[in-house]
Amino acid sequence: MKLVTYRRTVEDEARLGALAEGVVLDVERLGYGVGLELPNRMLDFIAAGPAAWEAVRRLIEEGLVGWAIDAVIPAANVTLLAPIPRPTKNVFGIGLNYVEHVEESARSLDTSIDLPKEPVIFSKPPTAVIGPNDPIRHNAALTQQLDWEVELAAIIGTTARSVSKENALDHVFGYSVMVDVSARDCRRAGQWIVSKGQDTFAPFGPVIVTADEIGDPQNLDLWLTINGEEKQRSNTKHMLFKVDHLVSDISSCMTLEPGDIIATGTPSGVGAGRDPQEFMWPGDVLECGVEKIGTLRHPVVKA
Amino acid sequence: MKLVTYRRTVEDEARLGALAEGVVLDVERLGYGVGLELPNRMLDFIAAGPAAWEAVRRLIEEGLVGWAIDAVIPAANVTLLAPIPRPTKNVFGIGLNYVEHVEESARSLDTSIDLPKEPVIFSKPPTAVIGPNDPIRHNAALTQQLDWEVELAAIIGTTARSVSKENALDHVFGYSVMVDVSARDCRRAGQWIVSKGQDTFAPFGPVIVTADEIGDPQNLDLWLTINGEEKQRSNTKHMLFKVDHLVSDISSCMTLEPGDIIATGTPSGVGAGRDPQEFMWPGDVLECGVEKIGTLRHPVVKA
Repeated sequence: MKLVTYRRTVEDEARLGALAEGVVLDVERLGYGVGLELPNRMLDFIAAGPAAWEAVRRLIEEGLVGWAIDAVIPAANVTLLAPIPRPTKNVFGIGLNYVEHVEESARSLDTSIDLPKEPVIFSKPPTAVIGPNDPIRHNAALTQQLDWEVELAAIIGTTARSVSKENALDHVFGYSVMVDVSARDCRRAGQWIVSKGQDTFAPFGPVIVTADEIGDPQNLDLWLTINGEEKQRSNTKHMLFKVDHLVSDISSCMTLEPGDIIATGTPSGVGAGRDPQEFMWPGDVLECGVEKIGTLRHPVVKA
Repeated sequence: MKLVTYRRTVEDEARLGALAEGVVLDVERLGYGVGLELPNRMLDFIAAGPAAWEAVRRLIEEGLVGWAIDAVIPAANVTLLAPIPRPTKNVFGIGLNYVEHVEESARSLDTSIDLPKEPVIFSKPPTAVIGPNDPIRHNAALTQQLDWEVELAAIIGTTARSVSKENALDHVFGYSVMVDVSARDCRRAGQWIVSKGQDTFAPFGPVIVTADEIGDPQNLDLWLTINGEEKQRSNTKHMLFKVDHLVSDISSCMTLEPGDIIATGTPSGVGAGRDPQEFMWPGDVLECGVEKIGTLRHPVVKA
């Protein structure tokens, strides 16, 4: 399934939908059509668990003949928001998780040249999340070094507490794209949250693709362009700590809950690592994507 | 007002209450008694804004004669939970915010001896929060350096975005106590979240005292004991960055919302800064408090 959070007009509430050929299916209304009570929000749907996920999967497969008329909306008629417009907890980020990015970071930032022995975990506040096409705000009072980082995001489906690497992927609901926008000059005493947590610094979407459709999360191309020029291109197979390791490791320290997001780290090609360094400025356009999931496009604007 | 989140029995839901002489007043039922619709959860009450706060303040002042009978519960008959049992966003923490703590940290940890020029911000995930008397879990697989940090916590009342220092305190709903439990040996590439974000690492409570009752937040004694032995004693006047500065500064980077919590930093006397170093182990009991707010008591147990 490809799941979205959408609205029809700016006045409408944000609702949970599923993408099918050219249409968005409203999940709650799809359920009404067959006498099934289903949630109208992504977080509630994730928390509802595997039985609800499977029910919706079957409803989508039934095709047009089985769909309630008012559940079917032409995709062109909706606006997509971030799949989880406001996470309820942290968005966890992973630093220094691609080998070549560790190298470029050690050259250009203050990080170590040695590969980390454990995942480097940080967080982005939920207020940083924006959806497809929303502007990234450049606040010149805070930063002159606004940088990009395209990442595969894993979304937790069921509570994970000290889970083994072997069982870790059972706790993943699906995958999406997240940009870990980073103001390099905003670190404070080495802490990253001001650098990575400002409003609009977590572009997210456009869809969550459920884990069953992704198959192996460690074989996905990912890429990023600025003004159409390619800056990052890699594959998730180059991650230092794979998704199963990340879920297992974080769950051994902090309980992971349905709807939690793990941005799994970025490959090389960030602006700070280039020679000369490059950063984003108002007027720039960031585009990026992850294979099998989709693409994001975000203008940079003056805050 | 002294506001709490309480339950009567373990089966009951957590509800919003106000402390009056020897009793807990159930806020929602207090409202029913006078035909006023009031929330039954702390976060909803904070979000309801100043008019709701003022209405409850007046109801409390009316005294026993004005209170609905079923709204009054002997304080001895309830269990207090963390005032906000599950924050909806980050709990922001402030590092290195008392001058003597900067010195002891530079001696014993890897932080700089120079006073920070800006607040050092980090976050603790909402899953770390526990309430009065809940055990702090010592996970020997992760840490041999479990440390204490008593702090004044400021709770945001109204959305704050780029507010000035002058207006900052208008956005503070009230104050509470938070312990920034820190596993010193769990930092990763300098990031603090694993060190400070593990489950049970944010004891919080026992009440939120509204800002009007606190008066000047920069003149409050705070203290902490381990097994009855005093380890920390200071006053919030020794903060490097005062609460108004912290709210203004964070709001200039990240939007602050009703119910957000800022743990404002700890004074000197932490275990890592002692000679020889001391840490907490299963069987220990941590007690701490902040003047005008109350005290917390937490046993340390094996995870």
